Amino acid sequence: MNIITLTTDFGTADWFVGSMKGVILGINPQAAVVDVTHEIPGGNIHEAAFALLACYRYFPQNTVHVAVVDPGVGSSRAAIAVRTQDYIFVGPDNGILSLALAQEQVLEIRRLDHSQYFHKPLSHTFHGRDVFAPVAAHLTLGVPLKELGTELSKYVQIGWPQTSVRDSVVHGEVVYIDHFGNAITNIAATDLAKLAQHAPSVFLRGEEVCAVKNYYQEVASGEAVAVIGSSGFLEIGVNGGHAVRALGLRLGEPVEVK
Amino acid sequence: MNIITLTTDFGTADWFVGSMKGVILGINPQAAVVDVTHEIPGGNIHEAAFALLACYRYFPQNTVHVAVVDPGVGSSRAAIAVRTQDYIFVGPDNGILSLALAQEQVLEIRRLDHSQYFHKPLSHTFHGRDVFAPVAAHLTLGVPLKELGTELSKYVQIGWPQTSVRDSVVHGEVVYIDHFGNAITNIAATDLAKLAQHAPSVFLRGEEVCAVKNYYQEVASGEAVAVIGSSGFLEIGVNGGHAVRALGLRLGEPVEVK
Amino acid sequence: MNIITLTTDFGTADWFVGSMKGVILGINPQAAVVDVTHEIPGGNIHEAAFALLACYRYFPQNTVHVAVVDPGVGSSRAAIAVRTQDYIFVGPDNGILSLALAQEQVLEIRRLDHSQYFHKPLSHTFHGRDVFAPVAAHLTLGVPLKELGTELSKYVQIGWPQTSVRDSVVHGEVVYIDHFGNAITNIAATDLAKLAQHAPSVFLRGEEVCAVKNYYQEVASGEAVAVIGSSGFLEIGVNGGHAVRALGLRLGEPVEVK
Repeated sequence: MNIITLTTDFGTADWFVGSMKGVILGINPQAAVVDVTHEIPGGNIHEAAFALLACYRYFPQNTVHVAVVDPGVGSSRAAIAVRTQDYIFVGPDNGILSLALAQEQVLEIRRLDHSQYFHKPLSHTFHGRDVFAPVAAHLTLGVPLKELGTELSKYVQIGWPQTSVRDSVVHGEVVYIDHFGNAITNIAATDLAKLAQHAPSVFLRGEEVCAVKNYYQEVASGEAVAVIGSSGFLEIGVNGGHAVRALGLRLGEPVEVK
Repeated sequence: MNIITLTTDFGTADWFVGSMKGVILGINPQAAVVDVTHEIPGGNIHEAAFALLACYRYFPQNTVHVAVVDPGVGSSRAAIAVRTQDYIFVGPDNGILSLALAQEQVLEIRRLDHSQYFHKPLSHTFHGRDVFAPVAAHLTLGVPLKELGTELSKYVQIGWPQTSVRDSVVHGEVVYIDHFGNAITNIAATDLAKLAQHAPSVFLRGEEVCAVKNYYQEVASGEAVAVIGSSGFLEIGVNGGHAVRALGLRLGEPVEVK
Repeated sequence: MNIITLTTDFGTADWFVGSMKGVILGINPQAAVVDVTHEIPGGNIHEAAFALLACYRYFPQNTVHVAVVDPGVGSSRAAIAVRTQDYIFVGPDNGILSLALAQEQVLEIRRLDHSQYFHKPLSHTFHGRDVFAPVAAHLTLGVPLKELGTELSKYVQIGWPQTSVRDSVVHGEVVYIDHFGNAITNIAATDLAKLAQHAPSVFLRGEEVCAVKNYYQEVASGEAVAVIGSSGFLEIGVNGGHAVRALGLRLGEPVEVK
């Protein structure tokens, strides 16, 4: 398998992502590099972790997922590769991989300290190009994780808000805002299944704002609606509109379903 | 042939396009996926139809063109695949394919209702990933259209403004505004050929604004000019500038050439 | 080798880049096309030249680097291909290739005047699709440069500000502003090596603003810092912030290191 995915905050205006792909193709000319996104807000490890969580399992087995939002580049933070039952994940050990890894059976964690797999000279500021890209390329060539460095027993986890169910009310919050202006919550389909009702509604600041439906077009154009979105989580949208602006939502906004 | 193109309004900030590519590569690891654009304004079927029209024929024979601007996702709108002499087109049956198809010899239209070619579980909100991507991948593997579902006799067409020629004046309008701020009209080179004059001029709101030239640099920097652009249609630009802002243009703006 | 890189000002909102890739794949279906960036500000040859300089050497030998910021398209400006020891560069002869070429051993320069390698019909406005893309694709198939047109003895060079060292002060200027808001200067690591001091500082408008460090995290969050960035040049940043906004920097801003 030759697939490498990239999730970064490098943007697409400069040459950063191009350089990573150049390094990868220099090591494995057969690599198929897929951009997940390079538009994670600068330094926002949580958004990158969520984006990776939302898409990693749609790739075939043995895909190497590289995620680099790396405010600590050059400092003593570790760089890691993690092998699970189905995939390999590569990135800084700052929690960026942790939401996806929490869904997987982790088999092996290695600190990337064997510099023979790095691009030389190693810069202090761009490990995406000099560490993570070349390591991922070597992994697609079949280099085993144990060649990459010291074994670790755990990886850094980021905080992730837990949902709760009390008195037939699911309590959650907005965790991601997408390109369409939909507010994605941490409430999963399994949370909703705990409710007695079959037609629950979404409440914001104590007020009912919309019903939970199957798809956006079930409500009239311009009306709010909540659906289990493609990421597997409840999202609040406006049919044909921008829910975050229309409803004044923000990251962390409490959401109740009852 | 393994080429699949993607034209969507999914943006590049989230993981949506990456998920589509993951699904495609899981079915056909040899697929070459080319992004046409993912920056169609949300829900704007007309712009997507025009972008597809402007570029589809620059791809080699047997390319599978996927276009997904799909405000009706999850509702009863059909999903279709259309085979022409040279290409296969895949998308929702909402007119998004119709401008390109009007240029082609259509050989077969199928409604995508055989779910064995879908990604499972099928979401209600993201058929780009769960229907169109996997169907396109199967098509590149040689699955014949007749396996995909029921034959249809026609596809939905979007309205497209017609040009007219009266008293040696071509009447058209602005149909697309590009990244450089050029205003692309629906006036084709064949329309201009109907004029007696060899050096026609462009008129907006009754006033002459510029001559029709061969290329932008034929006028001084900062001056307006009209050329037959790379899409095959007359476009109004400003050499080194942004015509739409300079001339106060908008989509639907009437344009006369005489 | 089948790698082609693209550096343009075409943006990603329209179909322009997709069309180029379609033409390339029609000629060489095995080509691997890598986007460096398509977000060079319209017509800004200097920024494109710098982006190409910053990344070209991270690609494997025999990569064909295509750069198209081409305000003179359709006029008499030449289109060229340049072979160096390690790479081939293709683009308009307006200086866009010149910063990278200045680092390379140039072996052969050809004017692209043999139209059998162009896409037909040849437009007056989009040589990216009709000239540069097909020529690059033919080059990856092994067409020798001498088949492409007349030999030239030189290429157009753009002005590039030189640094100077006087009285143990390095004088340079800001030449590029990246996505993170870092201000990249024309001061190279070799310039700093000429200073007697081992811990030099950066001065803007006569005032000391920060020290030169190895990486961003060596200063507190929100503080200014200068590092030798991944492009090999000194860049001024703010740890976790946007240096250009915080320090009021602009392109051409004089920078002193002492």
